[in-house]
Amino acid sequence: MEIVDLNSDMGEGFGVYRLGDDVAIMECVSSVNVACGWHAGDPLIMQERVALAKDLAIGLGAHPGYPDLLGFGRRDLKLSPKEARAYTLYQVGALYGFARAQQIPLEHVKLHGSFYNQVAYDLTLSQAVLEGLRDFDPHLIVLAPSLSPMAKLGQEMGLRVAQEVFADRHYLDDGRLVPRSHPRAFVTDVQEALARVVRMVKDRRVQTISGQEIEICADTICVHGDNPKAVQLAMHIKEALLKNGVKIQPLRAFLKGGVH
Amino acid sequence: MEIVDLNSDMGEGFGVYRLGDDVAIMECVSSVNVACGWHAGDPLIMQERVALAKDLAIGLGAHPGYPDLLGFGRRDLKLSPKEARAYTLYQVGALYGFARAQQIPLEHVKLHGSFYNQVAYDLTLSQAVLEGLRDFDPHLIVLAPSLSPMAKLGQEMGLRVAQEVFADRHYLDDGRLVPRSHPRAFVTDVQEALARVVRMVKDRRVQTISGQEIEICADTICVHGDNPKAVQLAMHIKEALLKNGVKIQPLRAFLKGGVH
Amino acid sequence: MEIVDLNSDMGEGFGVYRLGDDVAIMECVSSVNVACGWHAGDPLIMQERVALAKDLAIGLGAHPGYPDLLGFGRRDLKLSPKEARAYTLYQVGALYGFARAQQIPLEHVKLHGSFYNQVAYDLTLSQAVLEGLRDFDPHLIVLAPSLSPMAKLGQEMGLRVAQEVFADRHYLDDGRLVPRSHPRAFVTDVQEALARVVRMVKDRRVQTISGQEIEICADTICVHGDNPKAVQLAMHIKEALLKNGVKIQPLRAFLKGGVH
Amino acid sequence: MEIVDLNSDMGEGFGVYRLGDDVAIMECVSSVNVACGWHAGDPLIMQERVALAKDLAIGLGAHPGYPDLLGFGRRDLKLSPKEARAYTLYQVGALYGFARAQQIPLEHVKLHGSFYNQVAYDLTLSQAVLEGLRDFDPHLIVLAPSLSPMAKLGQEMGLRVAQEVFADRHYLDDGRLVPRSHPRAFVTDVQEALARVVRMVKDRRVQTISGQEIEICADTICVHGDNPKAVQLAMHIKEALLKNGVKIQPLRAFLKGGVH
Repeated sequence: MEIVDLNSDMGEGFGVYRLGDDVAIMECVSSVNVACGWHAGDPLIMQERVALAKDLAIGLGAHPGYPDLLGFGRRDLKLSPKEARAYTLYQVGALYGFARAQQIPLEHVKLHGSFYNQVAYDLTLSQAVLEGLRDFDPHLIVLAPSLSPMAKLGQEMGLRVAQEVFADRHYLDDGRLVPRSHPRAFVTDVQEALARVVRMVKDRRVQTISGQEIEICADTICVHGDNPKAVQLAMHIKEALLKNGVKIQPLRAFLKGGVH
Repeated sequence: MEIVDLNSDMGEGFGVYRLGDDVAIMECVSSVNVACGWHAGDPLIMQERVALAKDLAIGLGAHPGYPDLLGFGRRDLKLSPKEARAYTLYQVGALYGFARAQQIPLEHVKLHGSFYNQVAYDLTLSQAVLEGLRDFDPHLIVLAPSLSPMAKLGQEMGLRVAQEVFADRHYLDDGRLVPRSHPRAFVTDVQEALARVVRMVKDRRVQTISGQEIEICADTICVHGDNPKAVQLAMHIKEALLKNGVKIQPLRAFLKGGVH
Repeated sequence: MEIVDLNSDMGEGFGVYRLGDDVAIMECVSSVNVACGWHAGDPLIMQERVALAKDLAIGLGAHPGYPDLLGFGRRDLKLSPKEARAYTLYQVGALYGFARAQQIPLEHVKLHGSFYNQVAYDLTLSQAVLEGLRDFDPHLIVLAPSLSPMAKLGQEMGLRVAQEVFADRHYLDDGRLVPRSHPRAFVTDVQEALARVVRMVKDRRVQTISGQEIEICADTICVHGDNPKAVQLAMHIKEALLKNGVKIQPLRAFLKGGVH
Repeated sequence: MEIVDLNSDMGEGFGVYRLGDDVAIMECVSSVNVACGWHAGDPLIMQERVALAKDLAIGLGAHPGYPDLLGFGRRDLKLSPKEARAYTLYQVGALYGFARAQQIPLEHVKLHGSFYNQVAYDLTLSQAVLEGLRDFDPHLIVLAPSLSPMAKLGQEMGLRVAQEVFADRHYLDDGRLVPRSHPRAFVTDVQEALARVVRMVKDRRVQTISGQEIEICADTICVHGDNPKAVQLAMHIKEALLKNGVKIQPLRAFLKGGVH
């Protein structure tokens, strides 16, 4: 029987601003990635989201991004490996501050937006970030795109890596996501999205934007809560997985590997 | 025999900017308070300062400030107790990220500038910040102005409080610092500063700006490294204390109290 | 026959974030105050709002705030007069950049939130800000609270001052607004708000929170667009004014005074 | 007889931080580019630098950069053309606020760091920025790298373009600067730098890092003031130019072209 984790980014407001319905999506997922104040998020929001994750016994993760609130961390910014490491540790530590104060473990880390994409496919950056995370806590689970260089490197380094797929995004033949700027970046048909997700989990296959079939590895599925339709889609995904005999659990419950 | 800690703020650059000679002052003090990226400091600087504190076996502390890089955290900003708590935890956590990744304990916390002054003399803010720190780690040492409401409250809460005096600042009759904007805020004569410091430590007394004698409690003395003269003064203070039979040690070595 | 201006703050989003329905409220008012990137607003939003103001032939104003995006410019921050002047000129200039590039005049300036309140009732700050604005353009219209020290000083300096009242806020006996933190800060009953507005314009009187009657001067009425109810209220206010024979026009059309 | 402008970036401090000796370098150059608060600079510093430029009758320019104070605007950030235009107008407007308040014309604009390089060699970005500047003021002088696509496009659009060379930087065969990260990015030998500058101005030729000779166009020479050696070099450059019969004047005095 297959097991998969459902994760969602959250706490992506700032000050008076809010983005999406965090509470609704939290009732749907088994893990949350809380923004750490750089691409989004602020201390009050972080504190509240950590409390909510504790109440719901959901896996709590940090979601570090570029120092670019104005661009929501989605614009490419060229960082050095040293910067990538330090920016990650700063943000992971900041979220850990709230987790520790509320006696809830920080279980995983997922980079955000352009930081996620740039680090995952650049081995020098991957290594800097992974070493930083291992130095902080060798038991942290690191989310990385399915079959990405970062995912492989993390496993070689003895880290617990959760390979991630996206329910509402199209894939290129090389296994990378179709960029957001592309007209066909998103899977907009709900039934198609559901069928794709079930297949990614059960058959470990997905059809790329060119029509090719490629291998994929889905320890965790990213769903969104930033609009009512996204929350609805997440609920449908959960149902479809359960109906197809897939169990949904937080990563800690089933992910193997890691430093011993 | 008296023992006292010498502490200095540090890592107060940002990006390309640097402020003071952190290396020179570090060789003089027993504790350092590292800026956490809000009023000053950035992840690369924090990482380097933590490494330096480890090398020199100096007490490492976090130095959280207001979110006001433009004003260097020295301008009053009205925060709610909830904000004061969350802003402190965010920054303490961020610094802890680097401390933990480098396997060095985070021993103390000292608020910066206007945050330090506003919290220390407002019991509602004090309580919010102290509870946050206790939730994070009940063994943390909290620096607070000598005989301030925050110092007393921290002790009542069972926290380890280090009462702080300033070598180069004048005092008001109520034991508070003369504000920086005042023409006589600073003790500019070196000999006077040395005599004051020795007296504060050995006799627990200081003369205020009005000429009155008041009681003072000096677990730790704040010295500065932000200009060559300040570094020189710090060295003279160290010498004067040693010559007068006062031992200089990090707070962990002699401070009593705390949660058991 | 009475004439009054209806103004609304706008462009108060940032990056991916949006706040309120700027387009809906714009169809209701005769002047808009566009946020300038400090307490809210960003260059793309500013550019769009200037374009919209041009299309609708509405009076365009700058809305400078504190450098506190995290607190939306609503928290007290202690500025020096020099800082108050320079922060205002920076933001007014920034908005003027877009106005000039789109060949539309910048007609007025209204400070935001806590900046508005602190400057209006502190003559030293008022003078610094007013001198800065006069140096920039002696024909600018300056919005200030009804009968405030800033309003009077501006008139004495020969500036065109538009005295402002708030449709949905209660007043203290000294003519200042009841602070937002107070449980009765807001006028929540629509009929009451309408009656108050009409009375403020026609009779120049308002009832304070203590029940007292005070004089008030309403060149312009502030309405809000940050939620659907607020937009509705603004529309009702417009109707109520028109029904009571009050004309609604941008400030340039009727405001007297200014440097000659 | 040749005429050339000497320009220097300035006002690149922030809050308590300072960078370089602005006053010393100002006595050496004919034009200054004042940072606008994004990659560096703040309202108080801007106001002071504008005053100094006025006193010395030096050409005043705006120096807009990326929204990346942490990286001093030197890291690549991928902007859309719309963002590039709006970010430029915002910052140019902000500086203009101080220029207008002090009755001194804003004569030129020079982008900073990575923004300068990315826009100059990407025609879509160049066009967006140049159109924005033309909309703001068709008489503005735009600085662009010697013989860059942006320089050519600006001229075709009828703008006044000042082509810029760098005294202390090496060139690639395609006329672009050797990136700062390269070990031979900088010309470190003073005599070599002087000879190169004189040759660039008088012969319109420079030797690239590979030893090739290329054409170059020097309306203005960038010198630096961020360390004592740089100021010294700037003074030597000025002397060398004068000794070789080259006149130094602000761009307005000799630059041709522009919209009529």
